[in-house]
Amino acid sequence: MWGQIMNELGKVGLVIGRFQPFHHGHMHLIKAAYKKVDTLIIVIGSAQESHTMRNPFTAGERIAMMYPALKNAEIDNFLIVPVMDISRYAIWVAHIQSLIPKIDIVFTNNGLTRLLFENAGYEVEGTDNHDRRNCSGSNIRALLAQETISYNHWSDYLPKGTAEFISRIKGYERIKNTRKVK
Amino acid sequence: MWGQIMNELGKVGLVIGRFQPFHHGHMHLIKAAYKKVDTLIIVIGSAQESHTMRNPFTAGERIAMMYPALKNAEIDNFLIVPVMDISRYAIWVAHIQSLIPKIDIVFTNNGLTRLLFENAGYEVEGTDNHDRRNCSGSNIRALLAQETISYNHWSDYLPKGTAEFISRIKGYERIKNTRKVK
Amino acid sequence: MWGQIMNELGKVGLVIGRFQPFHHGHMHLIKAAYKKVDTLIIVIGSAQESHTMRNPFTAGERIAMMYPALKNAEIDNFLIVPVMDISRYAIWVAHIQSLIPKIDIVFTNNGLTRLLFENAGYEVEGTDNHDRRNCSGSNIRALLAQETISYNHWSDYLPKGTAEFISRIKGYERIKNTRKVK
Amino acid sequence: MWGQIMNELGKVGLVIGRFQPFHHGHMHLIKAAYKKVDTLIIVIGSAQESHTMRNPFTAGERIAMMYPALKNAEIDNFLIVPVMDISRYAIWVAHIQSLIPKIDIVFTNNGLTRLLFENAGYEVEGTDNHDRRNCSGSNIRALLAQETISYNHWSDYLPKGTAEFISRIKGYERIKNTRKVK
Amino acid sequence: MWGQIMNELGKVGLVIGRFQPFHHGHMHLIKAAYKKVDTLIIVIGSAQESHTMRNPFTAGERIAMMYPALKNAEIDNFLIVPVMDISRYAIWVAHIQSLIPKIDIVFTNNGLTRLLFENAGYEVEGTDNHDRRNCSGSNIRALLAQETISYNHWSDYLPKGTAEFISRIKGYERIKNTRKVK
Amino acid sequence: MWGQIMNELGKVGLVIGRFQPFHHGHMHLIKAAYKKVDTLIIVIGSAQESHTMRNPFTAGERIAMMYPALKNAEIDNFLIVPVMDISRYAIWVAHIQSLIPKIDIVFTNNGLTRLLFENAGYEVEGTDNHDRRNCSGSNIRALLAQETISYNHWSDYLPKGTAEFISRIKGYERIKNTRKVK
Repeated sequence: MWGQIMNELGKVGLVIGRFQPFHHGHMHLIKAAYKKVDTLIIVIGSAQESHTMRNPFTAGERIAMMYPALKNAEIDNFLIVPVMDISRYAIWVAHIQSLIPKIDIVFTNNGLTRLLFENAGYEVEGTDNHDRRNCSGSNIRALLAQETISYNHWSDYLPKGTAEFISRIKGYERIKNTRKVK
Repeated sequence: MWGQIMNELGKVGLVIGRFQPFHHGHMHLIKAAYKKVDTLIIVIGSAQESHTMRNPFTAGERIAMMYPALKNAEIDNFLIVPVMDISRYAIWVAHIQSLIPKIDIVFTNNGLTRLLFENAGYEVEGTDNHDRRNCSGSNIRALLAQETISYNHWSDYLPKGTAEFISRIKGYERIKNTRKVK
Repeated sequence: MWGQIMNELGKVGLVIGRFQPFHHGHMHLIKAAYKKVDTLIIVIGSAQESHTMRNPFTAGERIAMMYPALKNAEIDNFLIVPVMDISRYAIWVAHIQSLIPKIDIVFTNNGLTRLLFENAGYEVEGTDNHDRRNCSGSNIRALLAQETISYNHWSDYLPKGTAEFISRIKGYERIKNTRKVK
Repeated sequence: MWGQIMNELGKVGLVIGRFQPFHHGHMHLIKAAYKKVDTLIIVIGSAQESHTMRNPFTAGERIAMMYPALKNAEIDNFLIVPVMDISRYAIWVAHIQSLIPKIDIVFTNNGLTRLLFENAGYEVEGTDNHDRRNCSGSNIRALLAQETISYNHWSDYLPKGTAEFISRIKGYERIKNTRKVK
Repeated sequence: MWGQIMNELGKVGLVIGRFQPFHHGHMHLIKAAYKKVDTLIIVIGSAQESHTMRNPFTAGERIAMMYPALKNAEIDNFLIVPVMDISRYAIWVAHIQSLIPKIDIVFTNNGLTRLLFENAGYEVEGTDNHDRRNCSGSNIRALLAQETISYNHWSDYLPKGTAEFISRIKGYERIKNTRKVK
Repeated sequence: MWGQIMNELGKVGLVIGRFQPFHHGHMHLIKAAYKKVDTLIIVIGSAQESHTMRNPFTAGERIAMMYPALKNAEIDNFLIVPVMDISRYAIWVAHIQSLIPKIDIVFTNNGLTRLLFENAGYEVEGTDNHDRRNCSGSNIRALLAQETISYNHWSDYLPKGTAEFISRIKGYERIKNTRKVK
């Protein structure tokens, strides 16, 4: 793709998610977004969270489960940027802006994300959803938490490499132990 | 690039820097490290800092000045991860670990970074330095801050795309205005 | 207003609220408190919050919706101080003390606020409530969130300028989009 | 007690709790753990919390209610260390490690605490529970919150000195006022 | 003052300072700015700081030393907003924006403040300085720290009420004790 | 030791230090203070710091180097409480208060600590100093940092167990590597 020396990122798009875990729905969105830009920035939100029912995996694990899948899908120009929550929506866009290269467009279906980025002057585009009923983080986490459910079931909704990664780190045991520590 | 479907990151190396700005010395280190691993993780430290003499550029700008240079250098398998300071060395390694995939080796010439990662059980390897006298962040920032010095001078120590990026965002004006705000 | 040169604030009272949004109940309390002091300090709590169902408006917007109403009500000597949460009740009084001038009396009907300020040695006085059933933040936010309810309904419980401000910034759209960002 | 000059802490054990309030179940666990080590470190978690239904007492109050009871029980070699939450499980063990001496063993019945310390390479041992139905923090707090319940009832589950301390600081009034401040 | 019901703040200006302490130079700037706007917002920066040589007074004390002076100067429409540092210049403007009403113009002579607000799209205007050699916070603090220097000396550079306030709280003793606590 | 069941802590004293490292001067102060109270609370300040020239040891290491020395000195009733900095002097006393039992007296020779605790209503008592020229943290750290200086030299100023602990964890290597990580 880089026929000549690359000096800029070209048109840059932004996708934001928690990716707990990364699934086919995310891949579907990323592929659609990637068609419209030269470089895609994928922000992993709530990067500080892990070991809870809602956020079982660390940001590092989430990168590890996404990166090979993106490479395999021939998404060549992407950046994965873990971003810790700032817990103040009024400065959330500025927080993200400071941690990523300049973006031209945001892809999201979330009403508040749209509102906040639009107020900051960005172009925001919605996307169609891929099998939202099954391919949702909460559904997949619920399947992972039920140990009598066989491996093949939850793994249906994940890229192959992602599913294997979760098996390797025993993601189901992680989820079962996510009770409050204190 | 990936002859077969990629499921894992292979051997993973870590390089840490502030990259204020990214220069030939960093590229030299990254190339040396990349020869020894399958995937290289480049952590941008002090990601929350910007607009100061010591840290003029945002993490996002630092990504933007590095990414094309890495692509041009045919570093194919890398991750750039901005990490905000935690200001507690005793938990600094754990902080970084949680935000990046599992690493196998750390490349550093800094004594404390070596000590902390070795104490945490990591293999740590030093590297030779590239023209340390000129190719240092503090030297290049000093050159940038002197406006009577011509463009070509500071840009000698930076990859071409990086220098152009800094010119485009008027990095020298940024540095000249980095007096305390309050 | 100041018959002679003012050197001190005189007797100073404190009122604390989140003012999400500012309504007739708050005005009623402020008027009652203002009769008993020379200067009234109005602390806007949870100043860091916005864009959530419970805290839709930024601290700046809350100031903007209160300030004209206070001026119109001929409250001449007041200070509005936005205070970010410290999330530790044991040091909450000290946190507020450090951000406002010395106070002589606290007006509150909240049991914990009373307990904490009394333990710190302050005089605390309760007040009667104004139409608590309708004039409550949660009720007014609920009305704002229902778009089929006409403007005039929720605006009945707010000072005129406040209601107009909320219409101008499209406060109802804000509230409808306060779903989780991440 | 120390037959000869003490240079080290010997075998060190760790117990973690919030102790809201300290009760017979905690004492039972501490006694069991103390039999197996030379020095016992008791971490008070959520040290920053107080004046809420779930965490009514400050860390200082929790120390004051435990310390005499431990002395009376002839636990001679112990350290009580209040630790503020870090809200990031991935670095929680490192956070605790940095604030306490080196430990050899962890005593816990909590699944996530076990998982996190085992992943960090520690020996973790479970213990039997003492009258879990009555001797639980939530049960005792519920009893404290009901003022028609006589003193003797909730105090049955607490060491004598602890119960007296709670009476002295009027712990039941504290709990009744733990509504949201803001 | 308000000939008719006030619904909006009109043209709003912003002045930012640490006011350690408030002096004639600040008053000079505020008067000049006030002539050009309907409402003036005065942000007290580094609001969390106190008891240091550089920041001897709490935000509350700084409000108390400014408020009467502003009233006496017939500045009628102003807001004083203490703002705690966020220590990240890249999001500093957004942080301030969220805590104050919408502004139309910023008055500053500081290069970085100008740069940051201009980048955010604001009109920024410089002002002439009033006796900068004597009327500077650092000079006045130095005078306060020397107890053999008579009262009248440092007080020459402060509004009368401000000087009296500092005497009343023994500001010179405060400054002399601002050595590191830890 | 406790002739009868202990229900309270009796008269409680507070000593605050960073103990980098713990030395004879600290022991001298603690012994003097312990004579005047029933229970002594020793707060380790800057508990979050480590691996810097000024704060080489973690709070846990500082506890480990003090605890045996206190036991050997027959200080029987003491509590060691590591406290992380809050970086706001105006609420520093409240921060400490919340983490320790109620105190009756503070022992300090630091002007600001005295000022802050006196303003909060506490009795504060100074103490004589023990060999301040040699027995200071900065002097001992400087000796530790010079590896040609023999062991016996710096260890002269430390309790025997403390010196052995520092040797065991190779404290001199720690100090030599405390250059900035980032």
